Amino acid sequence: MDDEDTFKILIATDIHLGYLEKDAVRGNDTFNTFDEILKCAKQNQVDFILLGGDLFHENKPSRRCLHSCISLLRKYCMGDTPILFDVLSDQAVNFSNSKFPWVNYQDENLNISIPVFSVHGNHDDPTGADGLCALDLLSSAGLVNHFGRSQSVERIEISPVLLQKGSTKLALYGIGSIPDERLYRMFVNNQVTMLRPKEDQDQWFNLFTIHQNRSKHGATNYIPEQFLDDFLDLVVWGHEHECLINPSRNEQRLFYVTQPGSSVATSLSPGEAVKKHIGLLRVKGRKMNLQKIPLHTVRQFFIQDLVLSEHPDLFNPDMPKVNQRVEAFCQEKVEAMIEEAERDRLGNPLTPEKPLIRLRVDYSGGFEAFNATRFSQKFVEQVANPKDVVHFIRQKEYKAKVKGEEGVDFGQLLSHSSTEGLRVEDLVKEYFLTAEKTVQLSLLTEQGMGKAVQEYVDKEEKDAIEELIRYQLEKTQRHLQQRGVLTEEEIDQEVQRMERGGRHLQQRGVLTEEEIDHEGERWG
Amino acid sequence: MDDEDTFKILIATDIHLGYLEKDAVRGNDTFNTFDEILKCAKQNQVDFILLGGDLFHENKPSRRCLHSCISLLRKYCMGDTPILFDVLSDQAVNFSNSKFPWVNYQDENLNISIPVFSVHGNHDDPTGADGLCALDLLSSAGLVNHFGRSQSVERIEISPVLLQKGSTKLALYGIGSIPDERLYRMFVNNQVTMLRPKEDQDQWFNLFTIHQNRSKHGATNYIPEQFLDDFLDLVVWGHEHECLINPSRNEQRLFYVTQPGSSVATSLSPGEAVKKHIGLLRVKGRKMNLQKIPLHTVRQFFIQDLVLSEHPDLFNPDMPKVNQRVEAFCQEKVEAMIEEAERDRLGNPLTPEKPLIRLRVDYSGGFEAFNATRFSQKFVEQVANPKDVVHFIRQKEYKAKVKGEEGVDFGQLLSHSSTEGLRVEDLVKEYFLTAEKTVQLSLLTEQGMGKAVQEYVDKEEKDAIEELIRYQLEKTQRHLQQRGVLTEEEIDQEVQRMERGGRHLQQRGVLTEEEIDHEGERWG
Repeated sequence: MDDEDTFKILIATDIHLGYLEKDAVRGNDTFNTFDEILKCAKQNQVDFILLGGDLFHENKPSRRCLHSCISLLRKYCMGDTPILFDVLSDQAVNFSNSKFPWVNYQDENLNISIPVFSVHGNHDDPTGADGLCALDLLSSAGLVNHFGRSQSVERIEISPVLLQKGSTKLALYGIGSIPDERLYRMFVNNQVTMLRPKEDQDQWFNLFTIHQNRSKHGATNYIPEQFLDDFLDLVVWGHEHECLINPSRNEQRLFYVTQPGSSVATSLSPGEAVKKHIGLLRVKGRKMNLQKIPLHTVRQFFIQDLVLSEHPDLFNPDMPKVNQRVEAFCQEKVEAMIEEAERDRLGNPLTPEKPLIRLRVDYSGGFEAFNATRFSQKFVEQVANPKDVVHFIRQKEYKAKVKGEEGVDFGQLLSHSSTEGLRVEDLVKEYFLTAEKTVQLSLLTEQGMGKAVQEYVDKEEKDAIEELIRYQLEKTQRHLQQRGVLTEEEIDQEVQRMERGGRHLQQRGVLTEEEIDHEGERWG
Repeated sequence: MDDEDTFKILIATDIHLGYLEKDAVRGNDTFNTFDEILKCAKQNQVDFILLGGDLFHENKPSRRCLHSCISLLRKYCMGDTPILFDVLSDQAVNFSNSKFPWVNYQDENLNISIPVFSVHGNHDDPTGADGLCALDLLSSAGLVNHFGRSQSVERIEISPVLLQKGSTKLALYGIGSIPDERLYRMFVNNQVTMLRPKEDQDQWFNLFTIHQNRSKHGATNYIPEQFLDDFLDLVVWGHEHECLINPSRNEQRLFYVTQPGSSVATSLSPGEAVKKHIGLLRVKGRKMNLQKIPLHTVRQFFIQDLVLSEHPDLFNPDMPKVNQRVEAFCQEKVEAMIEEAERDRLGNPLTPEKPLIRLRVDYSGGFEAFNATRFSQKFVEQVANPKDVVHFIRQKEYKAKVKGEEGVDFGQLLSHSSTEGLRVEDLVKEYFLTAEKTVQLSLLTEQGMGKAVQEYVDKEEKDAIEELIRYQLEKTQRHLQQRGVLTEEEIDQEVQRMERGGRHLQQRGVLTEEEIDHEGERWG
């Protein structure tokens, strides 16, 4: 099938370069796997690589992380292999955010052998006054083609990158990560438009890349597949870490969805324990085939659940020395998992030696938890996570989770907040609830302040708060000048009126004209 | 003279990209001037660009700063212009720190039109466990050739990059920035060796690039020109910001020194007020010519001194309303400087509108200082530094400075400490003087801790302190194991012995074998 009319595309997502890079054992995992992915692309002589976001784990990757990434891309994606497809669309539109708005392999100063196309994820999204993201450093160096960027918070119009190889026409659509609730609202308001080529519409294979919640995290905190246009042929869904790479058919929209999953486990939840793969997608005409390729450098991860109350024959809370019995049993379980990992690793010299092991112990029903840290330390020479091999849960919380959120992967959910457990928005909300009475910060909206603090914490945008305050101050001053307000009392009244107005519009989901300018986009 | 045997080299240094990048008025200055420098190189069709360090102001440049730098280098230094010189030396030695150890223009995947060669400066020097610096990001992307790196703290052996154009042979030597005292010690101990080609030694033009203190900042805190080998023909001296680009002859060593100076004023001291230039160096055979090229995008800077006691006819401390008179006189002076700047700028559309203005007022002799901030604010629409136009000094401190340091540029001196005025080393020293009595941190040496804190503060190396502690702990544990020490008391004694030994060796300038390993190099 590998003929001159067949696109061969390597598909991967959520590589999270730099995740745990300081860890003595796991520090190189993400770089090793990125190396494997690029090597695989080269060996398979793909036409291009398509990444679904979160190439970087940190919004501001470390120097070492950037240096490794640049070096690997230069090593594998430059060279003399000719590129056998053309770009038919207006590249100045496709790559309008770049200072070099054309696909890298057409740059006459760069000898690209494998073009990489990528949308950004929620970990490496654009931030700051300049709206740059880590991918932009790679694209300015000519190593990546960053597509799927949108400037507006009101509406998105996606102009696909139109590619042709032989007789096959491929339209590449993408949306870089956007807060789910905002994108949900835009879809509901019919503000997401996917442009289509005017001629020969039926001849195009339409490939869409998205980096959003696919599982339902709250009513509007995900993107239902049904929102997407039905002319699409295949959706590559990033962000979700579980490997569900075999295309599943959406029977309402009649397209397929592939969820490659991350290439590194960033949490010890069941979804991450599914064997990691990348995909080799072949497209010929409007037909496609997706070949699963297992990743060998990925650290093994085994997880098991143990519900103590389900083993009344072995232990009950009233037994003498029940704690020791439970601990001994857990030790057996862990040792069995370690052995299983060892057997499984046989003949895979690329796989790191120490696996990730997690035993979830449900100790509800009167049992006591033992010291999980001390227990885990026993396996310091055998596992890669010797701080948290065992994890205690109670049936109640377990059930509540399952019931309330319909099987959502909570490890996943938590991993989106950089300081696990602490939700910055909640803190800010609480502050405003208290502070409002005394009108301490009447110029700053809760929403704006929440976003600024979030950027400060999550993205290390050190100037976010200062910029918000300057923005709000200037906005207020402009408003007051226009109204010709003079006395102190009048100023207070006007400011309160502005506040109320803003809140009212926010509740209705409306943005004022003033707010869709550059600054408004950030603090809206 | 521009024939096939003549090297044309653009020489610049201390560009300090990103200096004050958040400043609403001055934020783009460094990028505009880098653009001008690169454009100038292109217009003059130079063979290569030689940078003397501190291309970046921050050790960890911001994303915007890196993005701008990468974009400018790609814009100006890539293209079809053929490179007309060869590299004769072993590039694997010249660029041994790079993952791509060859000159960028010989990389078959990059179409380089102007190679850039650069040493690192003290602002952008290698830090952290990986020993990477900002230039390494550029070199991994193939945009800069980073040379003059040394791995050892004991000795330096410089293998020159040997270049040949037509019949002209150019040996390019360089040392990236090293703490002055360390390099001074190495020179004194004859541990700095400049290798020379074996054949035709007399035919080479020997060019050396250095980024160190040239002015004497303390007995061993600079590098005397006399330390340098006398076979050199020209020394390009970076780090010093005053433009003294006309080559001056060292009559003892019989070589020339050119000090291009920075292309941006990073302090408001007299040295920075000297008009900024870059150099166009021509080398043919062993003859050279250095052409000064004025920079037009550099913000003007005018500085004047006013000694109040030298104008008894105008004011004395006992006059009524003397303060108002002084302030009015200062205002006249400042307005005159602003006018001078305006006239001077006529016909230079590239020069930014608002100049930097500094009036240093010596108010000794019983005068009072007025509010400098309020005074400066009067010029907010006319100057680029409306917070500190006027600066009060007293004759005593002024004289003390001049006398004690033989005309050293103090603005320069201070600018090397990132938190102006606060010297981290002094704080650490003070802490250890107090703490030593109670033996609180007996495992950490003052020197090691000082360096770690300095890296933490200056270079934003967040892990520096943790890494030092781990290193010292492991070293101590190793030592104790070797000695077979057992009781608590014995351990205390051993630790104290180690400490004393370490200090003794440090005083003698000797480094133990153990300390020259990778970690020792950092904390030694």
